[in-house]
Amino acid sequence: MSNSYNVNRKYSSALYKRAKEVMTGGVSRNTIFRRPHPFYVATAKGSYVTDIDANTRIDFANNMASLIHGHAHPAINEAVIAQLQRGTAYTLGTAVEVEFGELLVERNHNFEKIRFVNSGTEAVMSMIKAARAYTGRPKIAKAEGAYHGTYDFAEISQIATPDTWGDIDHPNSVPVTMGTPECVKKDVVIFPYNDIKRTLKLLEENKDELACVLIDPVSHRVGMFPIEKDFLEAVYNWTRKNKVLMVFDEVVTYRVTYSGAQEMYPFKPDMTALGKIIGGGFPVGAIAGDAEIMSVFDPTRRVIKQPHSGTFSANPITMTAGKVAMQLFDRKAVDDINKMTNIAKKQIREAIKEADVPVVLTGAGSMFRFHFRKKAPRMYRESYQSPDERRLIVDFLDYLFLHEDLIMINTFACMFATTITQVEVDRLTESLLSGFKKFKAEIHQFAK
Amino acid sequence: MSNSYNVNRKYSSALYKRAKEVMTGGVSRNTIFRRPHPFYVATAKGSYVTDIDANTRIDFANNMASLIHGHAHPAINEAVIAQLQRGTAYTLGTAVEVEFGELLVERNHNFEKIRFVNSGTEAVMSMIKAARAYTGRPKIAKAEGAYHGTYDFAEISQIATPDTWGDIDHPNSVPVTMGTPECVKKDVVIFPYNDIKRTLKLLEENKDELACVLIDPVSHRVGMFPIEKDFLEAVYNWTRKNKVLMVFDEVVTYRVTYSGAQEMYPFKPDMTALGKIIGGGFPVGAIAGDAEIMSVFDPTRRVIKQPHSGTFSANPITMTAGKVAMQLFDRKAVDDINKMTNIAKKQIREAIKEADVPVVLTGAGSMFRFHFRKKAPRMYRESYQSPDERRLIVDFLDYLFLHEDLIMINTFACMFATTITQVEVDRLTESLLSGFKKFKAEIHQFAK
Repeated sequence: MSNSYNVNRKYSSALYKRAKEVMTGGVSRNTIFRRPHPFYVATAKGSYVTDIDANTRIDFANNMASLIHGHAHPAINEAVIAQLQRGTAYTLGTAVEVEFGELLVERNHNFEKIRFVNSGTEAVMSMIKAARAYTGRPKIAKAEGAYHGTYDFAEISQIATPDTWGDIDHPNSVPVTMGTPECVKKDVVIFPYNDIKRTLKLLEENKDELACVLIDPVSHRVGMFPIEKDFLEAVYNWTRKNKVLMVFDEVVTYRVTYSGAQEMYPFKPDMTALGKIIGGGFPVGAIAGDAEIMSVFDPTRRVIKQPHSGTFSANPITMTAGKVAMQLFDRKAVDDINKMTNIAKKQIREAIKEADVPVVLTGAGSMFRFHFRKKAPRMYRESYQSPDERRLIVDFLDYLFLHEDLIMINTFACMFATTITQVEVDRLTESLLSGFKKFKAEIHQFAK
Repeated sequence: MSNSYNVNRKYSSALYKRAKEVMTGGVSRNTIFRRPHPFYVATAKGSYVTDIDANTRIDFANNMASLIHGHAHPAINEAVIAQLQRGTAYTLGTAVEVEFGELLVERNHNFEKIRFVNSGTEAVMSMIKAARAYTGRPKIAKAEGAYHGTYDFAEISQIATPDTWGDIDHPNSVPVTMGTPECVKKDVVIFPYNDIKRTLKLLEENKDELACVLIDPVSHRVGMFPIEKDFLEAVYNWTRKNKVLMVFDEVVTYRVTYSGAQEMYPFKPDMTALGKIIGGGFPVGAIAGDAEIMSVFDPTRRVIKQPHSGTFSANPITMTAGKVAMQLFDRKAVDDINKMTNIAKKQIREAIKEADVPVVLTGAGSMFRFHFRKKAPRMYRESYQSPDERRLIVDFLDYLFLHEDLIMINTFACMFATTITQVEVDRLTESLLSGFKKFKAEIHQFAK
């Protein structure tokens, strides 16, 4: 289908031929892959990305939700260039890691201590290891369908399907990667998000072995809806009673409020993994949380429970870019981007009505996701996209990308940047309306 | 001891007080920690690092071996600044990831395909997962004492001690992090580096379950000596016979020749993990190797054995910096830095002789490590530093850092940059000579 649009692609197509010679499938990250070939960026500014065939598109993906101020923000660039002249990494510390640590700790009273790493994957891995180090217990519990990076314990059941997911009373531990050791599967308890009764039963069955319950409070892959308060309360109370840690993955969701999605709830996580936007466009991850628990990392203790370094952890380029990005993402900026997102959602809901298609929007703050459904899903098995539905979504996203010049996330989601204005929101709405009309019959097939 | 040197430390000391408020132990990576506090960098250029109290030191650590051209190299900075104007990360590809992939693949005929990640830890983790995905088997074998990042399977027995390491015929799987699941320990086979007979016996016992044998060909923590050819040959032949992968961790050692330390041997690894210098000073990792094995990552296959992405993987800033750094690190630059290192080693050996201390140097290419020994170690249990020996090394390194203004790696090792000249080598030699004389009596205690 994607070949049917008349798009300049000569240079991207040629570059992909070279890419296939040196990379498996021609890519270094599957995110950028699309058939028949990825497109390659020449330059980007704010919310506009121009590829090497001179196609300019509006960016609603922002490198998988990691650029809260869009591309090439002048204030971030200026600070980074100043740091570049002083070096990018040392075997010593820098003031900016302390300043940025202070800034993030100040924004959220649940963050008593913080530690930086290089990616969301590293943040979740280090957090899980910290939970084990603190409790001395091996198992983690995570939600079916939730994405938490590529640490094998964290990725179990992220792409569970009807063929593999098993009985909802005892969801299977479904590995993402072939050859995942049996023991990894055994040490991960999969629970159904938002299902109190089943989840508590599963936790109870494993309580003596559980180090932590890992929760993304607005899990993108589960369906991108805020976790239900009753559910979170039940899990929180259970963890308090059983001395199991409750840890959050806010790598994506930190953008939702000034202090992260956790501020929407009165239940304090013991630790939180961060990433994406806090790097200001540079590789980043962080673990923040309770001082006593985080002391497992402390190199001044006689016994270091979790010795931990990382060549590029807290490097001053990432710290500088992140600090400026987060200074700019102040309370007003958070309010403004969330308001602009709400305007977009309102306009899109009107377009859905006008096109008369069974499409629902979920989301929180400056992010939202589309579902070809009559009713908003509230768990992974409801939001799960079947292969046929995936094909339709890919066709729809190809239409938006190739015909309407919009970049969206491949689950069919938008992550706004502060550079999005009413102009881009109107373009988004119009493009979606035309897409809904074009694909109306197919969308109706998936309405449940 | 470290307080006894008269060093300006007012600002570093004050900053550390702030750091302790927001970070456990006041650091985000243990690498920078020293008692009573870390020092913080104001600026750095080439091989000189100036801290915020205006102390300038010569850098022989280069951010744990990651800066092959020292600090703030003008050509790298120029290219990075140009890329900054065009953006730092997208949900699309860039030409520079292809160009940099081509460059690295061209340098080593064992690298048929390459895939970029964000750190050495991620590279080793992804490589181990790929080995499992390809073979369908769960276990890995690794050398006692070898450091391979913080993925829990990879870090087993990295800090094994006489109290924990057990019988050398069956070395214990000693976790680095408390609470490491039993099953992780079970799925890691620990072998003694350079011990053919014992290693083959251990591999043989586990052959039906082994995915890969993980080898650092000049393991820093094992003792930083090139792996013995007979040993590598025996392991290689065993893996060929038993269809187990042999994979290399060259995150540190890629610098040793134009194509990595593996070029010193005729035994082709199936995959290699890279990191450190290939990022040109920015967070990086990579997996490179056999095309068929690497196809586990291929998103164009009907079944993707190892789905894999990463928000910042192959980001164009890292790719740009890495490409320029590796272009500059051409055959002549590799020869020159290795020659300069050999000059340094020769001078240092003369200083050792002059001071009449039992110190030996090990190393390869542009890196070397000191041992308080009469004879060079050839396995981890011989190079292992006891707590008393550690204290002496810390004292020695404090002397070099605080009194002689030299930055070295805390194992007592040097990693040269191309910016090191005869001037810095002479300073290094003189400082070491004065240190050897000062600590002569203590060093003699550890000579074995």
